[in-house]
Amino acid sequence: MGMVGGGKDAFIGAIHRIAANMDGLIELSCGALSINPQIAMESGKMLFLEEDRIYTTYEEMIQKEKALTAQKRIDFVTIVTPNFAHFAPAMAALDAGFHIVIEKPMTFTLDEAKELKKKVDETGLMLCLTHTYSGYPMVKQARHMVQNGELGNIRKIIVEYPQGWLSKLSEREGNAQAAWRTDPKKSGKSGSMGDIGTHAAHLAEYISGLKIEKLCADLNIMVEGRALDDDGSVLLRFDNGAVGVLIASQIAAGEENALKIRIYGEKGGVEWAQMEPNTLIVKWLDQPTQLLRAGSNYTHVLSSFATQNCRTPGGHPEGYLEAFGNIYRNFALSLQARIEGKEPSKEAMDFPKVDEGIRGMAFIDAVVASNESDKKWTDFVV
Amino acid sequence: MGMVGGGKDAFIGAIHRIAANMDGLIELSCGALSINPQIAMESGKMLFLEEDRIYTTYEEMIQKEKALTAQKRIDFVTIVTPNFAHFAPAMAALDAGFHIVIEKPMTFTLDEAKELKKKVDETGLMLCLTHTYSGYPMVKQARHMVQNGELGNIRKIIVEYPQGWLSKLSEREGNAQAAWRTDPKKSGKSGSMGDIGTHAAHLAEYISGLKIEKLCADLNIMVEGRALDDDGSVLLRFDNGAVGVLIASQIAAGEENALKIRIYGEKGGVEWAQMEPNTLIVKWLDQPTQLLRAGSNYTHVLSSFATQNCRTPGGHPEGYLEAFGNIYRNFALSLQARIEGKEPSKEAMDFPKVDEGIRGMAFIDAVVASNESDKKWTDFVV
Amino acid sequence: MGMVGGGKDAFIGAIHRIAANMDGLIELSCGALSINPQIAMESGKMLFLEEDRIYTTYEEMIQKEKALTAQKRIDFVTIVTPNFAHFAPAMAALDAGFHIVIEKPMTFTLDEAKELKKKVDETGLMLCLTHTYSGYPMVKQARHMVQNGELGNIRKIIVEYPQGWLSKLSEREGNAQAAWRTDPKKSGKSGSMGDIGTHAAHLAEYISGLKIEKLCADLNIMVEGRALDDDGSVLLRFDNGAVGVLIASQIAAGEENALKIRIYGEKGGVEWAQMEPNTLIVKWLDQPTQLLRAGSNYTHVLSSFATQNCRTPGGHPEGYLEAFGNIYRNFALSLQARIEGKEPSKEAMDFPKVDEGIRGMAFIDAVVASNESDKKWTDFVV
Amino acid sequence: MGMVGGGKDAFIGAIHRIAANMDGLIELSCGALSINPQIAMESGKMLFLEEDRIYTTYEEMIQKEKALTAQKRIDFVTIVTPNFAHFAPAMAALDAGFHIVIEKPMTFTLDEAKELKKKVDETGLMLCLTHTYSGYPMVKQARHMVQNGELGNIRKIIVEYPQGWLSKLSEREGNAQAAWRTDPKKSGKSGSMGDIGTHAAHLAEYISGLKIEKLCADLNIMVEGRALDDDGSVLLRFDNGAVGVLIASQIAAGEENALKIRIYGEKGGVEWAQMEPNTLIVKWLDQPTQLLRAGSNYTHVLSSFATQNCRTPGGHPEGYLEAFGNIYRNFALSLQARIEGKEPSKEAMDFPKVDEGIRGMAFIDAVVASNESDKKWTDFVV
Repeated sequence: MGMVGGGKDAFIGAIHRIAANMDGLIELSCGALSINPQIAMESGKMLFLEEDRIYTTYEEMIQKEKALTAQKRIDFVTIVTPNFAHFAPAMAALDAGFHIVIEKPMTFTLDEAKELKKKVDETGLMLCLTHTYSGYPMVKQARHMVQNGELGNIRKIIVEYPQGWLSKLSEREGNAQAAWRTDPKKSGKSGSMGDIGTHAAHLAEYISGLKIEKLCADLNIMVEGRALDDDGSVLLRFDNGAVGVLIASQIAAGEENALKIRIYGEKGGVEWAQMEPNTLIVKWLDQPTQLLRAGSNYTHVLSSFATQNCRTPGGHPEGYLEAFGNIYRNFALSLQARIEGKEPSKEAMDFPKVDEGIRGMAFIDAVVASNESDKKWTDFVV
Repeated sequence: MGMVGGGKDAFIGAIHRIAANMDGLIELSCGALSINPQIAMESGKMLFLEEDRIYTTYEEMIQKEKALTAQKRIDFVTIVTPNFAHFAPAMAALDAGFHIVIEKPMTFTLDEAKELKKKVDETGLMLCLTHTYSGYPMVKQARHMVQNGELGNIRKIIVEYPQGWLSKLSEREGNAQAAWRTDPKKSGKSGSMGDIGTHAAHLAEYISGLKIEKLCADLNIMVEGRALDDDGSVLLRFDNGAVGVLIASQIAAGEENALKIRIYGEKGGVEWAQMEPNTLIVKWLDQPTQLLRAGSNYTHVLSSFATQNCRTPGGHPEGYLEAFGNIYRNFALSLQARIEGKEPSKEAMDFPKVDEGIRGMAFIDAVVASNESDKKWTDFVV
Repeated sequence: MGMVGGGKDAFIGAIHRIAANMDGLIELSCGALSINPQIAMESGKMLFLEEDRIYTTYEEMIQKEKALTAQKRIDFVTIVTPNFAHFAPAMAALDAGFHIVIEKPMTFTLDEAKELKKKVDETGLMLCLTHTYSGYPMVKQARHMVQNGELGNIRKIIVEYPQGWLSKLSEREGNAQAAWRTDPKKSGKSGSMGDIGTHAAHLAEYISGLKIEKLCADLNIMVEGRALDDDGSVLLRFDNGAVGVLIASQIAAGEENALKIRIYGEKGGVEWAQMEPNTLIVKWLDQPTQLLRAGSNYTHVLSSFATQNCRTPGGHPEGYLEAFGNIYRNFALSLQARIEGKEPSKEAMDFPKVDEGIRGMAFIDAVVASNESDKKWTDFVV
Repeated sequence: MGMVGGGKDAFIGAIHRIAANMDGLIELSCGALSINPQIAMESGKMLFLEEDRIYTTYEEMIQKEKALTAQKRIDFVTIVTPNFAHFAPAMAALDAGFHIVIEKPMTFTLDEAKELKKKVDETGLMLCLTHTYSGYPMVKQARHMVQNGELGNIRKIIVEYPQGWLSKLSEREGNAQAAWRTDPKKSGKSGSMGDIGTHAAHLAEYISGLKIEKLCADLNIMVEGRALDDDGSVLLRFDNGAVGVLIASQIAAGEENALKIRIYGEKGGVEWAQMEPNTLIVKWLDQPTQLLRAGSNYTHVLSSFATQNCRTPGGHPEGYLEAFGNIYRNFALSLQARIEGKEPSKEAMDFPKVDEGIRGMAFIDAVVASNESDKKWTDFVV
């Protein structure tokens, strides 16, 4: 694996490294870790990279790695730069024959996303989009139960993602994370909706298997002086007639990372909260609520998608890093199978791909368009 | 107290009696408990009413009670009939000089509500609207903290009220509760929004002290064959610039009575859930979350409005009936003070009144109008 | 109902009145509310008693009430005095032909308890002991599941009752509650174990249907200057071979009233916590955990003992006062049936009686004896 | 790092590898992964070890690694065999100049433990004992608060560790984990108390900073046919006069891995549960309960020991593997500092060492002796 972005002090780069490292399947071999050459070098050394594989631009990295022997060179590039700097290295990596892992939102614009998909289709290479939350085993269990019809026809989806960390104008107080995420030039046309609303939308579609068809968005800048939305609520209509609400806020003071989803069907509902991720609450119309737990011994109740994404028995909590690790592990297992000429398992192939990246970009476009419109409903167009 | 409605098998009538009975301040002395004379009589006997004070119409009750000596006759009438049958007995009772307690939504139409207010103003009599949930001590604590500025300027309100009991077409299966609540002739122009959405809206305004100014509603009939909305979501804008979401659903299969509210200000947020009502979760921007508990010994932290609405020390859970009892108790204490020519305490006077009933009816009108409109925003007009 | 003790400022007397009052089945008609005649009179007036039925001694009350017509006189006496003053009024009431309700621990000594039982047996009158916590519907559900064999043979019981309110030497700081409860002359030979340990022991035996056979107790005075144990832990052995632990502490600083019990059998376990009383957590060896909820619509899962001790549908929390009310209601329904010459239902007859009072006193004797002994195990002898 | 034990299908070996791998500080370079040469080889290959560093005995591994250049050879040996096979490789590794990481309980007998300590002292090498649960950041926060006097003098400790996985005679049904853990020849003289009771005892002493002085144990075999205790409860007395209870059970049917500790002082108490490890509940005598959260932004409240053992911001749950990783990371950072001739930070040095291993073995001896004794109290002697 070679990494683009993620120099020291970058939050998400470090997370990617722990996640990729976790299961002993992936080795970080090279990187273009920063556009600042000195930071790139320092960061590379801190990570024990061989000095001649510490690059200062992604172009250099891709070119030099391509020139190495198949034995030695990396198999894939992971792109953990801010949103505006996803597309170019992704295209370059694919062009050079490398698979890619890429942070969400996948690109800066929907057009880029579509172009990227074309490239993926042309090259036949794999693209893995790190929608972390779909890596949690109990999210996969929920998806399985919906697919299986256990809840009956889905009627209502409530997905919410409150955070509080942008309650102040932190981007003016030296918070680097806040700075790029609230800057339209780096983040794109939406702030909170792009950053965390896309996670929420993905989770809703991933678990329910439904597609958003129409939406009605109210985006807000609640902290004076900010350039992008830091709060928003969206009414949703899905392609089966189900309705929903999506809330994404970064000014919900005192909240940490409280992503939560509830999906109700005719027979019951499921509830999953990221901050207590090992429990799936299953509510029934006329039976007691059940708590399904990751790693449990009642494997006849759990889907193979859930059980194969746990590392430990029930009661040994796995968390965000393990969920992230699952995305990498499934990608790596699929890649490994492919390299060995085998068919990857359906469980391994269950990681977010380019189509989900496109829907994420389309979601951003649709909420921004809806927010600017006086009409109640805006079509979700891909 | 004389009761209109609430014969045997009526849910809410029994609740009112327990609530009124709880603190030994109020005695049920007479009733027109059913429009079916036989049920009225049987119900009255079951409740140990004197036979000559078991009436078969509210008109009879009001007329005969008025004729009794001041010593003997009731002080107030409590009206627990279905929505369509609130207005007439309320007007009659006020005309006869009786104070009233009345179930919400206050009337069948906004016009009736306004007429009722005029009557209340003219007569100078008291009207108490049983928005139960505002009777909980930790709801009052939350209101106090907002008023006190402890959260800073309010920015975001999320209030939700999911229930699952109308997930099937129960109104066709002999469920009397379901039958009248889903019948436009008895319930009014909205189903879920009228029944529980009004509770949610009241709670949001009561705690925040803000007023809804605009809203964007999506009402749905998710169970085929039903005549009124059984689900809805509403985007909200408040008069201080705060934004919000209100969700009311009776097809959230597996949910019981999960009213919950979160209010976020610049400095922190409060969270209260009706099903764990003795805890107020207070989240701070840069301090650990606190759990404020009803009945606790840290009375320097708790408002007098919270402490005076508890009967037991912390850890002895009080619930729905006690909250309901608080509405009656505060009304009774205010009435008693008035009868004794004293000024009631501000804590006793803190029960919902006719203005809140009008806002409830206006809320129903606004969400129904918004739902029918293609425009995103509809004004909330009283 | 006539009340002995429970004048103004008494905690438990007020609770008894709310509980008795709740369901409209019981009327407080007279009282000997305080040994201080002035307080007795003031308290009686505050409670709207007729002046000639406000008595100043229990002897006077019993004598005068006995002389009234059957129509007018009370049916039963409720005794809510401190422990040392339970026995005499109880004997007098039974001698005069009145049924009794009595606070726990039933008497001051085991000998008194046995004498009281003899009197109950002789007179054939009813004695109801207010072990409040056994009045909760989900406690009854747990008992039902154990009796039904759903958990298999019981192996382990953990019951704990931590409170923090005696963490300081409050009895010296004017806390009247603390004063009598820590005074051996008023409370008996044990403090915390007598006050709350007896509740814990009762709950364990009530739910499990087992009897404690041996125990090993460690009682402690953790606050210097106190005369009675304020903390204790006890190892338990039950008559079927099950083992257990009982913890009762009033110096667990920061705890409110955190009574909790867990009972494990071969196939699963139940967990119930008084502070969230409407949920019974049922854990299975090889199935997902279930949350059984009071008032739920899955009445095929719930015992009639659970359903008949709820007043409201699921999600409308009932609490401590309702549990207390259930004790009174069941007693009142049984008494009513008896007066009408009918057989009371088994659900109504499910309230604590004199034998449970004797076991409570024997428990106190056994833990105190064990605490003073160097031997590991002490027999629990009745 | 070289690993002894932990071949494929071994539970704890895989956990150690993930933990060691997590932060990119430690590389698995060699192993004697099984006493079965074929499994050793297969396991080594699965882990991408170089073939000439896949050994079949620990003796071979230590000898051959010692012969490598300092540059190439491992720095330390990690021992993850069943209990009976800890001592010999540990001694051999130390003799050869390798630091060691070792599973708990540290040895098979207390004598071995003492001998091992002598060797550690003689060689001056580092020994890290993997008491995982002390690696959690909020455990460290609790320890810090006690040390800091925030709770006042400690009075009561309740530590419990219920599991349900040995509710059946699984050792006879092909469960390899169950087989060795219930076999006195492999596990030692105690079953549950050795396996999980030692974790509980360590946690109590680690957080409180106190030492157990006396105890009174009741160990039980609840599943017929089993050779070692599968359940036990212990009364505790600490060296400052505090009292406590320790419960360790593997027949608590339906429980997962529910280690939980509560420590009460004069001013308040802390509560931590392994299954929700990112929250420390802090209860105060006269202030609202606080929830301290791992990774939170209120770093002025959190100890450096807590903050330096988190990888992610609040709300991104870290779990068991991260706690385990913290043990390895702290050991590795200390080792690295030592190799570089620097003083390790006090935060890095905060991992369990040989003295804690000795106390663990002494705990096992004391509970077994107490269980066999008729006397109430047995001294805890090291």
